[in-house]
Amino acid sequence: MQNNPNISFFQGGFEGEWTVKSMMTITGEALEEVSKIAIGNSMQNENTIKWTLSGVSSHLRYTTRNEKNALDQTPSILGKTESTCAAFIPLKKSDEWWLLTQDERRKIFENQSKHIQFSIPYLNTISRKLHHSRDLGEPFDFLTWFEFSPVNQQLFDDLVGYLRTTEEWNYVVRDIDIRLIRNK
Amino acid sequence: MQNNPNISFFQGGFEGEWTVKSMMTITGEALEEVSKIAIGNSMQNENTIKWTLSGVSSHLRYTTRNEKNALDQTPSILGKTESTCAAFIPLKKSDEWWLLTQDERRKIFENQSKHIQFSIPYLNTISRKLHHSRDLGEPFDFLTWFEFSPVNQQLFDDLVGYLRTTEEWNYVVRDIDIRLIRNK
Repeated sequence: MQNNPNISFFQGGFEGEWTVKSMMTITGEALEEVSKIAIGNSMQNENTIKWTLSGVSSHLRYTTRNEKNALDQTPSILGKTESTCAAFIPLKKSDEWWLLTQDERRKIFENQSKHIQFSIPYLNTISRKLHHSRDLGEPFDFLTWFEFSPVNQQLFDDLVGYLRTTEEWNYVVRDIDIRLIRNK
Repeated sequence: MQNNPNISFFQGGFEGEWTVKSMMTITGEALEEVSKIAIGNSMQNENTIKWTLSGVSSHLRYTTRNEKNALDQTPSILGKTESTCAAFIPLKKSDEWWLLTQDERRKIFENQSKHIQFSIPYLNTISRKLHHSRDLGEPFDFLTWFEFSPVNQQLFDDLVGYLRTTEEWNYVVRDIDIRLIRNK
C-alpha cells in the first residue's frame, strides 16, 4: 500500500496549531479528551499524541453537475486569517447505510435531507473539507472539518443543528463535535 | 491508520496459488512479469515477490436497488472447484473521470455503457470480486478478479471485450489483463 498524497492526519494530544475549546459526544463512543489538534500530511509519533485519525480527500459521491455548479460559486478556502474558529466532526454511519444502494443513499441524503440544498447558503461564510476514512479501515467513515470567523459561530451551529435533525442522521452511529480556536 | 478487515493483497512473484498463463498490457504502463500470484488478507514480505497491489471491498458506488435485486439472483461465489481459470485485471481511470460528478459518471457507466445490464447474463457462469484501491493511494483505482471454468473462457472474453469498447473505457488509462490457472 503506497501513500496517498491526499491523506491528512488529525492528531489529538497536547500539541498542535488548534486549541480545543470543547469536545462533545453527540452519538456513540467518546473520543479521549485532548487539548490540541495537529493536522498534517504525515503521521507524527510523538508521545504527546493521544489519538490519530486519518482520511483522504476524494471524488464526489452524491453531487450532481447542477449542484456542483452551484457549490463552485463559493469555493471553500481554508486558512483565511479571519477564520480563527474551527469544528472537527468525525462521523460514522451504520452498516445499514452502507448496505443501501446508491439511489437509496442519494434519496435520503438529498431528496429527503436536503444536505446540499440546505448547506449552500452557508458556504459563503463557512469553509469546509471532507475527508473519507471508511476504506482505510478507520474508526470513523468521515472526518469533517469547518473553519469560520467568530461572528459566524451561530450560523455554523444552525447548519450542523439542522443536519442532525435530518433523515440522513438516523444512520449516524458515532458523531463527535470538537470545537477549536487557532493558536495566536 | 488501522487495518481494514476487507483489504486484500495481490502479490506477484514466483509463489502463490495461481499460476500466470499470460499478462497483457492493454493500456498504459506495463506491470512487471511474474509467474505466480498469491492473494491474502495480509502482506507477505518474501523476496520472491515482485509487486504488491492492494484493494478493499466496499459499498456499491453506482448500482440502484432494481439492479441490485437483479444482481442478487446470481450471487458471486469464489473458490468453486470447477472454477480453475481466473482473470486479474487492475484498472486505473483518468483524472477527467474522477472530476466528473456522480450523475455524469453514472450516465457514462450505465446509460451509455450498460456496464451492469450487459454483464448480468454472464454472472451465472462468471464469479467476480471488485476491490477499490484509489483512496489507498495505490497505482490502480480498481483490482478486478474473475473466476470461471475452462469451458466459459470464451464467454469471459466476450464480456471483457465488450466492456473495452464502451464509452466508459475511454476513461481507462491503465488496463493490465492477467490470466491465471489455479495450481493443481
